[in-house]
Amino acid sequence: MTCELCMPQPDPVWRNDQFSVILVDDANYPGFCRVIWHAHVKEMSDLTAAQRVTIMDAVNQVELAQRAVLHADKINLASLGNVVPHLHWHVIPRFADDAHFPNPVWAQAVRTPDPMTLAARRALLPQLSAAIAQRLTS
Amino acid sequence: MTCELCMPQPDPVWRNDQFSVILVDDANYPGFCRVIWHAHVKEMSDLTAAQRVTIMDAVNQVELAQRAVLHADKINLASLGNVVPHLHWHVIPRFADDAHFPNPVWAQAVRTPDPMTLAARRALLPQLSAAIAQRLTS
Repeated sequence: MTCELCMPQPDPVWRNDQFSVILVDDANYPGFCRVIWHAHVKEMSDLTAAQRVTIMDAVNQVELAQRAVLHADKINLASLGNVVPHLHWHVIPRFADDAHFPNPVWAQAVRTPDPMTLAARRALLPQLSAAIAQRLTS
Repeated sequence: MTCELCMPQPDPVWRNDQFSVILVDDANYPGFCRVIWHAHVKEMSDLTAAQRVTIMDAVNQVELAQRAVLHADKINLASLGNVVPHLHWHVIPRFADDAHFPNPVWAQAVRTPDPMTLAARRALLPQLSAAIAQRLTS
């Protein structure tokens, strides 16, 4: 069976020999990122200690970029992988006015976000991508 | 305002000077654990690099104990904190027959788990607690 996360991701924000960072195309969550480990590994505890530090450092840099550029009210981090058991981290900028706040994004939506607000956040995505790349380069 | 996670947790599975591990009382998810950082910190990126390694190592030991004792089909990790913005990690053993699988536990339930299966998993909790304490002691 082909694993969709084993394929090279189109247009990654960042990619090195161990992981990629992509912007998730989610209309309600501009700035939602995924950090995808290249090797087909199921659980965080399948990594070595050094690899765990590497991927969590990447998650942390994405989080810092989201905080700096988007001024999110909260950052949500999750490694689930029930559907695609290939290690990846969701790094999700949350806002008090988003579709699910304060519930997780996987719960039922509680409001329809304001389109102008979403558009304003979407306009920051090039800046977010640049900030992530810069943080992961240095 | 009082933060409920700033209070000492009753009956922790493990506690040291930096974090506590508790078993979450969730009828559908026996073995669901939380790793709670003691200091009132909002985001992972508010920790130092060394503190991030400390808490993720604890999460990893809880995950390994859940895998060894419960033989979970998947482990879900999440740091959300939208309701209680005090850093804590959900470490959730998932099974193909649980209430939400393969969806996140925060989505709508898709089935009613078999009570005998849940009871069998619940019977393993003393063993899980002992395994977590042993892993975090050594």
